[in-house]
Amino acid sequence: MRDVSAEAVVGDDLACAYRAVRDFTEALAAALSPEDQCVQSMPDASPAKWHRAHTTWFFEQFVLVPRLRGYRPFDAAYAYLFNSYYETVGARHPRPARGLITRPGAAEIGRYRAHVDAAMQRLLDDPAAAHELHGLVELGLNHEQQHQELLVTDVLHAFAQNPLNPALHPDWQEARLPGPTRFVAFAGGVVEIGHAGRGFAFDNETPRHRVLLQPYRLADRPVRNREWLEFMADGGYRTPTLWMSDGWATVQAEGWAAPLYWRECDGAWSQMGPGGLAPLVPDAPVRHVSWYEADAYARWAGARLPTEAEWEHAAADGRLHGLTGQVWQWTASPYVAYPGFRPAPGAVGEYNGKFMVNQMVLRGSSCATPPGHARASYRNFFYPDKRWQFSGLRLAQEA
Amino acid sequence: MRDVSAEAVVGDDLACAYRAVRDFTEALAAALSPEDQCVQSMPDASPAKWHRAHTTWFFEQFVLVPRLRGYRPFDAAYAYLFNSYYETVGARHPRPARGLITRPGAAEIGRYRAHVDAAMQRLLDDPAAAHELHGLVELGLNHEQQHQELLVTDVLHAFAQNPLNPALHPDWQEARLPGPTRFVAFAGGVVEIGHAGRGFAFDNETPRHRVLLQPYRLADRPVRNREWLEFMADGGYRTPTLWMSDGWATVQAEGWAAPLYWRECDGAWSQMGPGGLAPLVPDAPVRHVSWYEADAYARWAGARLPTEAEWEHAAADGRLHGLTGQVWQWTASPYVAYPGFRPAPGAVGEYNGKFMVNQMVLRGSSCATPPGHARASYRNFFYPDKRWQFSGLRLAQEA
Amino acid sequence: MRDVSAEAVVGDDLACAYRAVRDFTEALAAALSPEDQCVQSMPDASPAKWHRAHTTWFFEQFVLVPRLRGYRPFDAAYAYLFNSYYETVGARHPRPARGLITRPGAAEIGRYRAHVDAAMQRLLDDPAAAHELHGLVELGLNHEQQHQELLVTDVLHAFAQNPLNPALHPDWQEARLPGPTRFVAFAGGVVEIGHAGRGFAFDNETPRHRVLLQPYRLADRPVRNREWLEFMADGGYRTPTLWMSDGWATVQAEGWAAPLYWRECDGAWSQMGPGGLAPLVPDAPVRHVSWYEADAYARWAGARLPTEAEWEHAAADGRLHGLTGQVWQWTASPYVAYPGFRPAPGAVGEYNGKFMVNQMVLRGSSCATPPGHARASYRNFFYPDKRWQFSGLRLAQEA
Amino acid sequence: MRDVSAEAVVGDDLACAYRAVRDFTEALAAALSPEDQCVQSMPDASPAKWHRAHTTWFFEQFVLVPRLRGYRPFDAAYAYLFNSYYETVGARHPRPARGLITRPGAAEIGRYRAHVDAAMQRLLDDPAAAHELHGLVELGLNHEQQHQELLVTDVLHAFAQNPLNPALHPDWQEARLPGPTRFVAFAGGVVEIGHAGRGFAFDNETPRHRVLLQPYRLADRPVRNREWLEFMADGGYRTPTLWMSDGWATVQAEGWAAPLYWRECDGAWSQMGPGGLAPLVPDAPVRHVSWYEADAYARWAGARLPTEAEWEHAAADGRLHGLTGQVWQWTASPYVAYPGFRPAPGAVGEYNGKFMVNQMVLRGSSCATPPGHARASYRNFFYPDKRWQFSGLRLAQEA
Repeated sequence: MRDVSAEAVVGDDLACAYRAVRDFTEALAAALSPEDQCVQSMPDASPAKWHRAHTTWFFEQFVLVPRLRGYRPFDAAYAYLFNSYYETVGARHPRPARGLITRPGAAEIGRYRAHVDAAMQRLLDDPAAAHELHGLVELGLNHEQQHQELLVTDVLHAFAQNPLNPALHPDWQEARLPGPTRFVAFAGGVVEIGHAGRGFAFDNETPRHRVLLQPYRLADRPVRNREWLEFMADGGYRTPTLWMSDGWATVQAEGWAAPLYWRECDGAWSQMGPGGLAPLVPDAPVRHVSWYEADAYARWAGARLPTEAEWEHAAADGRLHGLTGQVWQWTASPYVAYPGFRPAPGAVGEYNGKFMVNQMVLRGSSCATPPGHARASYRNFFYPDKRWQFSGLRLAQEA
Repeated sequence: MRDVSAEAVVGDDLACAYRAVRDFTEALAAALSPEDQCVQSMPDASPAKWHRAHTTWFFEQFVLVPRLRGYRPFDAAYAYLFNSYYETVGARHPRPARGLITRPGAAEIGRYRAHVDAAMQRLLDDPAAAHELHGLVELGLNHEQQHQELLVTDVLHAFAQNPLNPALHPDWQEARLPGPTRFVAFAGGVVEIGHAGRGFAFDNETPRHRVLLQPYRLADRPVRNREWLEFMADGGYRTPTLWMSDGWATVQAEGWAAPLYWRECDGAWSQMGPGGLAPLVPDAPVRHVSWYEADAYARWAGARLPTEAEWEHAAADGRLHGLTGQVWQWTASPYVAYPGFRPAPGAVGEYNGKFMVNQMVLRGSSCATPPGHARASYRNFFYPDKRWQFSGLRLAQEA
Repeated sequence: MRDVSAEAVVGDDLACAYRAVRDFTEALAAALSPEDQCVQSMPDASPAKWHRAHTTWFFEQFVLVPRLRGYRPFDAAYAYLFNSYYETVGARHPRPARGLITRPGAAEIGRYRAHVDAAMQRLLDDPAAAHELHGLVELGLNHEQQHQELLVTDVLHAFAQNPLNPALHPDWQEARLPGPTRFVAFAGGVVEIGHAGRGFAFDNETPRHRVLLQPYRLADRPVRNREWLEFMADGGYRTPTLWMSDGWATVQAEGWAAPLYWRECDGAWSQMGPGGLAPLVPDAPVRHVSWYEADAYARWAGARLPTEAEWEHAAADGRLHGLTGQVWQWTASPYVAYPGFRPAPGAVGEYNGKFMVNQMVLRGSSCATPPGHARASYRNFFYPDKRWQFSGLRLAQEA
Repeated sequence: MRDVSAEAVVGDDLACAYRAVRDFTEALAAALSPEDQCVQSMPDASPAKWHRAHTTWFFEQFVLVPRLRGYRPFDAAYAYLFNSYYETVGARHPRPARGLITRPGAAEIGRYRAHVDAAMQRLLDDPAAAHELHGLVELGLNHEQQHQELLVTDVLHAFAQNPLNPALHPDWQEARLPGPTRFVAFAGGVVEIGHAGRGFAFDNETPRHRVLLQPYRLADRPVRNREWLEFMADGGYRTPTLWMSDGWATVQAEGWAAPLYWRECDGAWSQMGPGGLAPLVPDAPVRHVSWYEADAYARWAGARLPTEAEWEHAAADGRLHGLTGQVWQWTASPYVAYPGFRPAPGAVGEYNGKFMVNQMVLRGSSCATPPGHARASYRNFFYPDKRWQFSGLRLAQEA
């Protein structure tokens, strides 16, 4: 997997990269009505309008206010409304109540974005400032790219609550990976993982360090819907011994019998996706499964999930399909700090470090990840019961 | 209190009354953005858009579909989306999820209303049909008027969750009732209550029947904010012996220390209302208090709440101020069927009867009640812990 | 129905009555192990040991401490542990945590009772004191009788959670009322209800007052299990239009499909009762139904529940079977104060008055009510969703 | 740390070891009343009686029923009542309802234990059977030792709910570790961890395998109460940036301001422990802290928690105090399978493996751990918010 993010997106011309990322957010939002942008369908999700505003606040709070002389915030109340979780910076609107903020509306948020963009362009036009702020702006852009994917996942969740099954992208095409799955062998040993060298990375990808791997094998493609249907037909969701204890409790409490967004009608399965409700594509990678489901599936298949180190070490192997751009792949690794990890100083140190408990690492990227945002060392993370992300799995085995 | 509803609103010209009521709903909604109309700030509340659609569905479902030959419903899915609680009619979207329906949007609901209004006008242009359907259309219009008030209460609740304190009606004026409160004496005896004669009434106001009243006295005006402040200053919210056991448990669980929408800043009280956040008006009737609070206040004041029969019997007395148009007045009466009550036949029989447990009767009407909707025999009802209505109280005493 | 409570239980010899009531509690507890007496199977229920201690604390707190010179409380901590809900008297152990108090144990509570009984006998041996304290001791004894019934209902609830189905009274016999149900007609008019004259009554039965009744008819016996089976067979628990809205929500949330303690095995119904698990007796009055179920049944049967005034007015009629001693009978009446009601002064004023909202009145008495405790004017009350009492129903109709 | 468990407890004479472990359970229970043994103070805890019965059922279910010809279970219902979580074996009583089982009582469970013990002695008297069943019986004994500690922790939790503060062991003595804390340096490198060689170990301690450690330093003793008081005085519980995000949310939701069982009175701290309520001992290791608290404390102290591999590798170092016998020590390691881990075949394979998500590893042992049960490779595990175990911490630092 080529590491393309630094060049393609944030390149030498920071101002250009800034415009590209910011425009992409607005392009995503353009398909949405004001109501679509305001709704919050569950506490885990945020309104699209909030994503548009919060990413803007990030630049205002961390770049413009401290660095652009004479900058006047667009609205003093927005620091309270659109801070996500930065305790260092101050109080904020409660997360589960984000959907109650009908005003400012979608149009007003557009004006907020224009206000901040104009100031950012002024700032970035100064080569010295652009040089000095490169790292912070790059972080802000990667941050916005993460919210671009969240915007898609959150809108999909909201649309899936609507009996009318609206389509976010009516011309959506599913990836297909026909053919048999093969396992590719790796010798293990002491290898290095983590980000090093030039190009952007989040702090949680560092420091690069050595790990000791046993020999292992990795499936050459993600698990697909047709394989998941076999798991279901074999009673996968009804067999407690396949599941972690917490997973089985969740299956029973939530009544899980299929991945999120799957619906059965007269024996045929459909899936609610960015293209609306559509017949399930057997050769497409399964997605919207939780870690609990991924883990149970792997056990049923006589395999296991790979560790994140196994995944990253293998990511340079050209025989592996669907590493990025299809589904995030759950790993066996809890999300913890790398040895010697130091959070970034200041408020942005809250970006990653304080979430390093109770969550599991996913690797790769998904069909909802914006172009150029993937990296072999990238560490995504969610709680093991979450299903609304474009999350799937790839199997591993002992050698 | 004059019974004006039948003449003013539904009068001889049913088509004209229809237009007037329907237009009033749209006038209320005109102050709202698409986002304002979509939000549901708690399960008790409904989106403004939903109120606009549900009242329209009522005419479509109960009048047009059965009675207008060749009528084609605007959208087959709307029967599911906009049925409120009519079990007889079929399944429906879960109430707490009404705010998740971003599509159809506010504009589309406008088209739905126009479609139904056009068909209704066709139907009402036929004098025979208008005559035959008079009762049902009158019910639909009174139903819509109830939702007009709910629209205001629900938007106010949503706006009160917003730190920006938006104003629904920026030019809002508070009612004032200066001067002392006096008690007016009534002799009691066997009196009649309930609706009789001509003019519209809901089924729960019937049959008119005799009740036996002890002599009693009724305050000539509602309790006002200045008096409520005395209750608070005297520790009203901290004295368990003033409260019903369930009320005291609610005070503690919810941390109540003032009416809903009251906010203290540096010792001064403001109130969030239709005009936004404004200084509390001492001479305005207190509102947004629950039955529990009203009952505790009355006990603190050495008085009690009137029964609904006492209220209705007194309502013709010209010395009583603020009977309607200011605040709904909690009574001591649980909401139960009158002796000999029979729900209307068919689905509209679900309108009132099935709610006759666990709720308390309020009498009068409020500043949010549409003109012409009040009646001496009118029975409003809510659970005793609810505060988001424009609910206040008037005291009673033994003679 | 004869009013026997005053004579039989509290008679002229107060000391003798005291011993009789206190001994009856201990006789009930004698069938229970220390563990049986400690368990609290739900927040609504209390441990048997707690009932034994709380009724003792009532005498200690309200009689001995203020009135017996030199009395030393058995243990200063008990005032905190065994106060139920008297805010006037001080803080208390939280109700849902009563089952966590393993110490003092059942034997220690026995010593507590003996300590208080000895002091009470000393006090009552003084004729002047006995005369002066008659009303308070009588209240304490009636209070203890109420807890005798609660002890039985609460133990039954605990035993019903045990897969071994223990029997509280292995030789328990069910009442039977074979033969058809007939309706007895009453003319109504202005009648008097409420307690008057000599003999004990709770404050909530007063003042005696006039009410206006329409003509009505009352079933000559409670509804029986065989009739309830017909309701079930006819889909009673699956037909929303039979239910109050709150009732139907409860049916769905709780999955109700039969009365509490009913169990089906191979098409045959059994009932968990004081005698353990036993085949359902078709001619026995149905019990352990909520008000919601009673109300739905009545609607299904083309009848209604009687008001408490109808019930009390009819209670002198010799043609009515099972008025007392079988099942408490839900009425259509919310539990509210009688006109002119004044709670007793002091802490015992909290006994009844503060519960006069959200609950429904039951009349009569049950097979678990201690002998001599029933009265025509007696007002029992529970929330409409409660089923663990020995609660059934008797039908009424318009004349 | 010497590995003493195999020799001391399960030694060559299995029958003797069996008696020793079983007697120790009964000695623990002897201090408890029947009520003490029945109570379940929260879903995480189990009644002492249940611990006594469940450990007995383990031998009955996994040893006697399959291996002792002619064995008759004591009571067929016990398999349902006393199975903990073995899905393979069948249905079971819901965990949160264990405290509702008042019958069988404590005495009856004593008879159950005697019945199973007699059969086990018969079986173990046969040398061939004892040899063949050695591993299974050893597992059962180690299982019972785990429940001996849980019995103590669960009774302490129940007693701590009682305002009378009962003492489990009135003569309890706190460990003290006076003097300064020093850090001991370790070079790291590729080391081996996990169980190997002879002697008992749980499956989760295997396979022994190599891990790569960076150089690190480990505190020579656990954190003590006096140090924890400094953390509190410095606002540790009020400073969000010290906490993981999930930890801070828990602090706020639960109102944590000190370790569990700590109580302040007039500025002096006491601790509820096995000896009842006693003044806090400054030099005793802090205990009853969650992983969230341990992690926040370490951050405040400029240190971190050790990984479980660091802990185990260091455990042979003689300069380290309090490795076992005082408090379990939270590590930075999520509880996951060792590379190549295989659960034991059959139902006992559910013992450990299915809990390998969402929990954190603790190492060492506590003052409540039975003698001979500790091991350098021992892996204890609990959720990061749990505090009712005897859990503390030891700091680590980068070299």
